[in-house]
Amino acid sequence: MKISLGAKPIAPATPVWVVGTYDREGKPNAMTAAWAGICCSKPPCIYVSLRRATYTYGNIIERKAFTVIIPSEDHVKEADYFGIASGRGGDKFAAAGLTPVRSDLVDAPYVKEFPVAIECRLIKTVEIGLHTEFIGEVADVKADPGVLDGEGKMDPAKVRPLVWNASGNTYHGVGMPKGPAFSIGKRI
Amino acid sequence: MKISLGAKPIAPATPVWVVGTYDREGKPNAMTAAWAGICCSKPPCIYVSLRRATYTYGNIIERKAFTVIIPSEDHVKEADYFGIASGRGGDKFAAAGLTPVRSDLVDAPYVKEFPVAIECRLIKTVEIGLHTEFIGEVADVKADPGVLDGEGKMDPAKVRPLVWNASGNTYHGVGMPKGPAFSIGKRI
Repeated sequence: MKISLGAKPIAPATPVWVVGTYDREGKPNAMTAAWAGICCSKPPCIYVSLRRATYTYGNIIERKAFTVIIPSEDHVKEADYFGIASGRGGDKFAAAGLTPVRSDLVDAPYVKEFPVAIECRLIKTVEIGLHTEFIGEVADVKADPGVLDGEGKMDPAKVRPLVWNASGNTYHGVGMPKGPAFSIGKRI
Repeated sequence: MKISLGAKPIAPATPVWVVGTYDREGKPNAMTAAWAGICCSKPPCIYVSLRRATYTYGNIIERKAFTVIIPSEDHVKEADYFGIASGRGGDKFAAAGLTPVRSDLVDAPYVKEFPVAIECRLIKTVEIGLHTEFIGEVADVKADPGVLDGEGKMDPAKVRPLVWNASGNTYHGVGMPKGPAFSIGKRI
């Protein structure tokens, strides 16, 4: 028998993704978004849901672009910092000791030291409630060569991405492979 | 120097979430959605992005409700099957040997054997491209008592949720805690 935990925005494992933007003056900013993910295959689209109060919200409205940068376990401290501090108060890249890189495709920066960067152009804005959903079309996915497998695909054991347990508020690594997708279920 | 992987819907770790619906005749269906997540805190909202061709698409239009059910590692085979087979052809619950439970809050079923169920009422439909995004307001989150920690919160080590590597098409478990959120970043 399941028990009720209430009407809450909680799940045991959601992606830890950082949103890269420029402000009006060109200062790069990075913010860890609680809610972000892929939302369409064709065109490939990513969403990030943000509160109006965030600095990143205004930056995306202004620049019509953002990146999603995926930190590895090595940068859990920086990823958490990007979710706590506001870019309104200063330069978060400098404070974290990380390097902004200007995307050559969209008007937004990514983090050099994080292994994966997804460059997006804003195509749709959806008002939901406290959060506004920004949907961006993916212009490119870029990755450090060292996180790819022999076929040029991202290997989670090399990217070492983080997930967030929004119920207990802890970060976790990604574990061992449990089976091939679109394949293991054929046994049923 | 990062290298280009192209404009693709890929990421190293996204949640493996199953969508529960009833069809017009009341037959329960379960489908693993490639793209799903939390998209708003107030009201708490979940999205699932679906192709029009899926059976679940019509069910959500018809019933204005869905559940998100989170399988554990023990059900990786069933979760993959739910993403491969269509409910148009038969009863996927029966084929997988799993038990549909009618939600007492929304017009949709969940999977008894999966540890977490999130019950949602459709509040918004967003056309993006190949995928349509269905946004549901969370009516309740229900969990098996055995997956909760001492404070009544979901413990990933007990839920044992899956993530999907959409780049290499593999399922993975969730690993060890890497730090507390909204806390470890304060050291910067």
